[in-house]
Amino acid sequence: MSAPEIEQLIQLLSKLPAFGPRSARRAVLYLLNKKESHFAPLMASFQTVYDHIIVCPICGNMDTQAPCSICQNPGRNPNQICVVRDVADLWALERTGVYKGVYHTLGGVLSALDGIGPEELHIQSLLDKVAAGGVEEIIFALPATVEGQTTVHYLKDCLKDYPIHISALSRGVPIGGELDYLDDGTLQMAFKARRDV
Amino acid sequence: MSAPEIEQLIQLLSKLPAFGPRSARRAVLYLLNKKESHFAPLMASFQTVYDHIIVCPICGNMDTQAPCSICQNPGRNPNQICVVRDVADLWALERTGVYKGVYHTLGGVLSALDGIGPEELHIQSLLDKVAAGGVEEIIFALPATVEGQTTVHYLKDCLKDYPIHISALSRGVPIGGELDYLDDGTLQMAFKARRDV
Repeated sequence: MSAPEIEQLIQLLSKLPAFGPRSARRAVLYLLNKKESHFAPLMASFQTVYDHIIVCPICGNMDTQAPCSICQNPGRNPNQICVVRDVADLWALERTGVYKGVYHTLGGVLSALDGIGPEELHIQSLLDKVAAGGVEEIIFALPATVEGQTTVHYLKDCLKDYPIHISALSRGVPIGGELDYLDDGTLQMAFKARRDV
Repeated sequence: MSAPEIEQLIQLLSKLPAFGPRSARRAVLYLLNKKESHFAPLMASFQTVYDHIIVCPICGNMDTQAPCSICQNPGRNPNQICVVRDVADLWALERTGVYKGVYHTLGGVLSALDGIGPEELHIQSLLDKVAAGGVEEIIFALPATVEGQTTVHYLKDCLKDYPIHISALSRGVPIGGELDYLDDGTLQMAFKARRDV
C-alpha cells in the first residue's frame, strides 16, 4: 500500500463525479511526477476558487462577485428570466452566447423517486421575483426528462395567474443528428413539431 | 462563461489523466457545492501530499520517508528485487501482499515508438545494485506488452554475466476468466504453458 497521506487523497478524489479509486490513483501519481509544473499551479488554483467563488444570491450562479457578473450586467434584460436546473446548465447556455436575459437556478428538478419536492428547490424565490412585478418572460431550459418536464408543468401551474410569457427550449433533431441513430421519442416529437420551411 | 478563476481550474484539472473539460467542470461544481465537507478537506489533503511525499532514492517508490518504508523494513529481503515499470504497478503488487522483497522502479519501458531508450529509464542504477553484490533474485513484473517484454529481454541480456536467479510473472488465464471471452494470444500462451495438476 502507498503512504496513508496518499490513500486519504485518493479516497477524497475518488468521491468526485467521474472519478473512481483507480483514476484517482493515476491522477495523484501524475501530479507527484509533475510537482512544479502542474501540482503547484493546481493547488494554487483550487485555493483561489475556494477563497473567491461565491453563490449569487439573486440567480444562484457562481462567480467572484455577488450579485454575479450576469445579474450586474446592464446589457442583460432583468425582465427575461431563464430557469435552469443548475450552474452547469447555466454555463452551458452562456457558452452559446445566444441569451441576453438573466437566470434563475432551481438547484435540481422535482423527483418523487429521489424525494425532491418543491420545498427542496429554489421555487419560492422565483415566484417572489415574479410577484415583485416587471418580469415579462420565463424561459424553461430544463432537462428533456420526465423529471424536468414535470418541473416545467408544476412551475407553469404556479405562474398561471401572472400575465407573463412562458416558453421552453424547442425539442427536435440535434444538429448533425442522423435520423437512423436518433431515439424513437425524439424522432416522434420532431415529426409532430415539424415546421414550415 | 464562468469566472476566469474557475475556467483556469477547469483547464488545469482537465489535463489530468481520465479527466476532460466536461468532467473537470462537473468536479469543480461538485466541490463548490460541498465547500466545507469536501472541498476544504481535499485541499488540505493535496497540500499534505505535496509537502510530504518524496521519491525513494533507492527504489523509486513514493512515500513520506526516504528511503521508503519498504526499503527500510527489516522484514523485507533486500536481495530479492522486483523490477516494475512505475509506482502504480508497485502499489498494485503491494496490495496483493504476496511479495516480501524490495523493488526497483524503471520509470517506464523501452519503446522505439515513443523514443524511450535505456538512457531514459533507471536501468544503470539497477545494474549498479546487482554489481554491488548480494542480489539473489530479480523478478520482472513488467506489462505483458511488446514494450514490456522487449524491456525484459534487454535487461536479461544486461544481467547475463551475474550468477542471479531471474524470473518473471506467469502468464495465463486470469482468475474468473471465461475462456470464450479471453483474447487468442492469452489462451494460446496459457495452453502452451499448461502445468500438471
